Amino acid sequence: MKLFAFTISLALIPLTSIAAEAPKSPNKSPSEVLEQSTPNEWHTINPDNLLINTLSDGTQFIVYLNDFMPQVHTANIKNLANSRWFDKAKIVRVQDNYVVQWGREEGTEIPNSVIKQPPAEYEFTAQKYRFKPLKYRDAYAAQVGFVNSWAVAGDGKNIWLPHCYSMVGVGRDMAPDVGTGQELYVVIGHSPRHLDRNITTVGRIIDGMENLSARKRGSGQMGFYENDAEKIAFKSSILASQLPENERPKYEIIDTNSKSFDAYINARANRGGPFFIKPAGAVDICNSLPPIRKAK
Amino acid sequence: MKLFAFTISLALIPLTSIAAEAPKSPNKSPSEVLEQSTPNEWHTINPDNLLINTLSDGTQFIVYLNDFMPQVHTANIKNLANSRWFDKAKIVRVQDNYVVQWGREEGTEIPNSVIKQPPAEYEFTAQKYRFKPLKYRDAYAAQVGFVNSWAVAGDGKNIWLPHCYSMVGVGRDMAPDVGTGQELYVVIGHSPRHLDRNITTVGRIIDGMENLSARKRGSGQMGFYENDAEKIAFKSSILASQLPENERPKYEIIDTNSKSFDAYINARANRGGPFFIKPAGAVDICNSLPPIRKAK
Repeated sequence: MKLFAFTISLALIPLTSIAAEAPKSPNKSPSEVLEQSTPNEWHTINPDNLLINTLSDGTQFIVYLNDFMPQVHTANIKNLANSRWFDKAKIVRVQDNYVVQWGREEGTEIPNSVIKQPPAEYEFTAQKYRFKPLKYRDAYAAQVGFVNSWAVAGDGKNIWLPHCYSMVGVGRDMAPDVGTGQELYVVIGHSPRHLDRNITTVGRIIDGMENLSARKRGSGQMGFYENDAEKIAFKSSILASQLPENERPKYEIIDTNSKSFDAYINARANRGGPFFIKPAGAVDICNSLPPIRKAK
Repeated sequence: MKLFAFTISLALIPLTSIAAEAPKSPNKSPSEVLEQSTPNEWHTINPDNLLINTLSDGTQFIVYLNDFMPQVHTANIKNLANSRWFDKAKIVRVQDNYVVQWGREEGTEIPNSVIKQPPAEYEFTAQKYRFKPLKYRDAYAAQVGFVNSWAVAGDGKNIWLPHCYSMVGVGRDMAPDVGTGQELYVVIGHSPRHLDRNITTVGRIIDGMENLSARKRGSGQMGFYENDAEKIAFKSSILASQLPENERPKYEIIDTNSKSFDAYINARANRGGPFFIKPAGAVDICNSLPPIRKAK
């Protein structure tokens, strides 16, 4: 059966796909839409919101912090980074279909001067923000959409940052504790949206997800590593703004109010091309995170 | 700050949780509900539907095949297993937030006698099945629910097996190809529901997911491994029914028509306990897969 050779190389065309090899289709693919976007539909991510984490094995992951919704938590995390608190962090937990978590070893004190006790920044008054709806429904929230190139969920009164794959949150103890930002986690499985409005989400990993998601799962309860030797040490964790300008990684994010973003969402909801037979006609918020690209 | 010690050990209480350590709560946790279920609310999984895959590193993953919806594909996969076709399979693709794919090397011929050319088993006439609705909405389908302990999505006329984390599908070439079952994939990220009704889903990995999801991501296009040395060889792939009875792994799945399953879904939609502040009031279908446990 000759088919098999093709099956290996072409099966399951994904999002960012092999458009160049595929026959013409009446619909543009999501990646074709992005290729045809204009430079003014993207904006550069502020280097003061990029936390560059380098692990002891040399791999990196980069957190894009949201500095305009969970403002106190984000400021704390920046202060912790600037005092090089996270340089001695370790990955302590990898739970399959759930989260990877990192922080300093148990019992490490942080200087009181470095962070401010944060409030529960779980949700935010919607009217403060320019909300652009995603026109498809959500299983969890009354509405979903975008604010300033961040995916958000809302109930008409408040909005919040949903627990999608790659979103970063602040570990906390039992309620009413809200955490401090000294321990963070990222979602690595099907989005656990039941955590929404119960924990502060502060950012999104925009590069290097695979350096966390492919880690060995912890054998302890909740995926914690049981042996110290399994924990992955950090080499450094620093804001891009603290690096010399020519050493900073640079990223752009699409403007969610742009025409190309509308076309991108439409292309994701209504897949065309030679692979798809029945477009879904919808896309959920966690499959709609605004695209990010490296800037030159 | 003493808090930190607790944050490490208790942050982010997950599904199957530390209920024993937690204070009493008015709501039962999902795991408490399952602990209090009765034996007659579970049924043993037929060993003829359990495909036991052992990799060259000794790890295993077990696929529970659905033999009553995609019947031709499932029969093909069983025939391939019984002819030991998959014993020489390799994991050839690991794409972050998407799929792990395995199959035989390009160009390997399969005997025509082993499999029957399958139809497109993408969706099925709903009225043939006893459908039990999940009472919460879905971002993709008009309705979601359960048939015989399988999560399904539907449009009122047809039902199908949705692409949730851990669901297994049949790799295929461009339409109208439907694949043969000789190459399979499993979802390892946020559920790519846009694949629903475009590919045949045939089963669900019920044990050993972490032996696939934690693999090194492929550096090639679509996550294919570029070097043969990176591919992970199988040692064997055999149906549990082909093993001597005392060597078979045994699993039970909850009856989705049982009271305990209703209570379990309710507990997942309305999380109680000392951690949660604001229950979601809903749960999506991919966070509602029927629980499975090892049988004695």
